[in-house]
Amino acid sequence: MKRTVLSVAVALVSGIAAQTVHAQADEPIQPIRPPQNINLGQVELGKKLYFDPRLSKSGFISCNSCHNLSMGGTDNIPTSIGDKWQQGPINAPTVLNSSLAIAQFWDGRAADLKAQAGGPIANPGEMAFSHTLAIDVLESIPGYVREFKTVFGTDKITIDQVTLAIAEFEKTLVTPNSRFDQWLLGRKDAITATELAGYQLFKNSGCVACHNGEAVGGTSFQKMGLVEPYKTTAAAQGRADVTKQDADRMMFKVPTLRNVEMTYPYFHDGAANTLTEAVDVMGRLQLGKKFTKDENAKIVAFLKTLTGDQPSFTLPVLPPSTDATPRPQPFGK
Amino acid sequence: MKRTVLSVAVALVSGIAAQTVHAQADEPIQPIRPPQNINLGQVELGKKLYFDPRLSKSGFISCNSCHNLSMGGTDNIPTSIGDKWQQGPINAPTVLNSSLAIAQFWDGRAADLKAQAGGPIANPGEMAFSHTLAIDVLESIPGYVREFKTVFGTDKITIDQVTLAIAEFEKTLVTPNSRFDQWLLGRKDAITATELAGYQLFKNSGCVACHNGEAVGGTSFQKMGLVEPYKTTAAAQGRADVTKQDADRMMFKVPTLRNVEMTYPYFHDGAANTLTEAVDVMGRLQLGKKFTKDENAKIVAFLKTLTGDQPSFTLPVLPPSTDATPRPQPFGK
Repeated sequence: MKRTVLSVAVALVSGIAAQTVHAQADEPIQPIRPPQNINLGQVELGKKLYFDPRLSKSGFISCNSCHNLSMGGTDNIPTSIGDKWQQGPINAPTVLNSSLAIAQFWDGRAADLKAQAGGPIANPGEMAFSHTLAIDVLESIPGYVREFKTVFGTDKITIDQVTLAIAEFEKTLVTPNSRFDQWLLGRKDAITATELAGYQLFKNSGCVACHNGEAVGGTSFQKMGLVEPYKTTAAAQGRADVTKQDADRMMFKVPTLRNVEMTYPYFHDGAANTLTEAVDVMGRLQLGKKFTKDENAKIVAFLKTLTGDQPSFTLPVLPPSTDATPRPQPFGK
Repeated sequence: MKRTVLSVAVALVSGIAAQTVHAQADEPIQPIRPPQNINLGQVELGKKLYFDPRLSKSGFISCNSCHNLSMGGTDNIPTSIGDKWQQGPINAPTVLNSSLAIAQFWDGRAADLKAQAGGPIANPGEMAFSHTLAIDVLESIPGYVREFKTVFGTDKITIDQVTLAIAEFEKTLVTPNSRFDQWLLGRKDAITATELAGYQLFKNSGCVACHNGEAVGGTSFQKMGLVEPYKTTAAAQGRADVTKQDADRMMFKVPTLRNVEMTYPYFHDGAANTLTEAVDVMGRLQLGKKFTKDENAKIVAFLKTLTGDQPSFTLPVLPPSTDATPRPQPFGK
C-alpha cells in the first residue's frame, strides 16, 4: 500500500510540476513530500512497538497514548498523563511530520526521532520503565523475536533496534495533500479568498519568519516571549535546560503548524485552548502586533488549511506475551 | 471490505458444508459465524466512539484503553486502570466475541452490549464522566454531529445512539477462522494430535459443561469455587451483587475461551497469570480433578487453537474538537 501511495504522490507531483515550480519556489512554505528510503519491515515492526503498552512499567501506556494517531498525533490535553497519573511538565508535541524537525522534544535535547524514542520509555514520569526491562519483555515474546530477526537479521533484540524501528514508523507519519499544499502545487481554488488573505497576513506580519518550510515550523529555536515576556507556571526553560546557558532561557523549538487544527491545546505549556487565543498571544508577544478580530479570524482560517491526509493504516495486532514474560506492574511499588 | 469478509466466509462455509455438518452437530463447540444484519454506518461511527478518549473526564481513557483491540480486546493486567489511576475491582473481560454472551459484565448486570457501553463512561472509577457531559462534547464537534445525522437521521445526539453505535461496532469484533474452527469445519489437519488429545480431555473432564457453544463460554453463570472455595482478595460477589441473593454469591458469567492465549491474566480477579495455572485451578476447584502435568499441557495446547482472526480495520481518525468543546479535566478536581 505504501508503494501505491508513493507512486500516486509521485504522479501527482510530476504531472503538475511544469506550471507550479515557480509558485513553490516563491513561497516560504513547501508542500510535504512523500517519505523517501523507507524500510517497510522496520515500519511494520515499529508500528507494533509504537502501540505496545508493554514498553511501559504499568502495561498501560504506549507511545500512542500521548501521541495518539487518532487525534493529530497528540493527546489534546495541556500536559500528558504519565505512570500513576503523574502530570507531565510540558505539552506533548505532535508526532505528525516530526521527521521534518531539526531536533526532537521542545528543547531539542534529542537529535533525531531515534534518539527521542528511547526517552519516554525510561522517563520515570512517563512510561517509567527501563531499556533493559523493555528488552527483557520483547525477548520473551516469540512473535517479536521472529520479527526482529526478520528485520534486523540478528538473534538478540537491542534498544537500538527498538528505537530505530519506532523512528522508521514515525518517518511515515507525514500528512501530505492539505488544501494549502494543493494550492502551493497550483490548484488555485483549493483555498478560499479569506484563507488566502489569512496566508498573506501570516506572511506579511512576520509569522512566517519562524513558521516556514515543509512543516511550517520545526526549523529553528526561538524565544517564547520575544517582545513581551511569556507568563507561565511551567518550569520548562527550553534550550537552557540542555545547554545550561542563560541566553537560552525560554528558547523553544518552533512547533510545526501542520494539522494545527487537531493539535490543541497550544504552546509548550498547553495554555492556549484555541487557535484564536494562540494567534493573539503570538502576535502580541512575538511580533508586538495586536491582530484585529478580522485579521485573527483570517489567519485562523489559513491555519486550518494546513490539515493534511492523516496516516491511514490497519491497527496492529500485537504478539501475545508468554508464561516467561515479566508481568506489568500497574499498581503498588 | 466488510462485504468481502462476509462473502469469503459464506463461501468457506457452504463449500465444505456437505461433509462437515455431522462433525459440527456432534461437538459442543460451534465455529464462529460471521456477524449478521450489521449496520455499517453505525459500525464506522461506533468505531470512532470506541477509540475516543473524549468520552472520559480526563480525555485520556477510551473503550480501547481497557479493551485494547491490539491485545485480544483486553488490557492484559489483573484489574484495569481508571480515572486518576484508580485500581478497578475486576479483570476487564475481552470485548472479542462478547456479542455471543448471554449478558455483559462478569456479573451480567447489563443485558446486552448496548446496555454495557454506557456503564464505563459514567463509572467514577473508570472513565469518570457522565452521559450528559459526553453528549455535550459530541454535540460541540461538527464532524460527529454530521455523522450522527447521517447514521440516525436526527439533529440531536442521544446517549442511546452513542451506545447503540458502540454496540454495533462491537458486534463486528468476532474472531472466526481459528485452527479449532477449521477443524470443526472439516479440515482434520488443522490441529495436531496433541491439541486434539487436549480437546478430548477438555470434553471428557467436564470443562465443556460450562465452556461450550460458539464462544466456548459466555452461555451461563456458574459458581467460582464449586468443589473447593476460591480464595481471593477481590470483593466482587458476582450475580449476588445484582440479585442481592445469598445463593448467587460467587456466581460469575463463564468467560469465553476464544483467543484465551491473548487474554491473560485469567479469572474475574486476574489472579492466574498463565493458562497452565488457570487450567490447574479450574480442574481442582470446579471439577475436583488434579490434572497431571501432561494433561494440563495438552489442554493448554488445545486452548491455543482457539485464537481466531483478530478484527482488522483502519485506525479511525477522530473529528477534532472546536473552540466550543468542553475541555477534558485530567488533573485536579
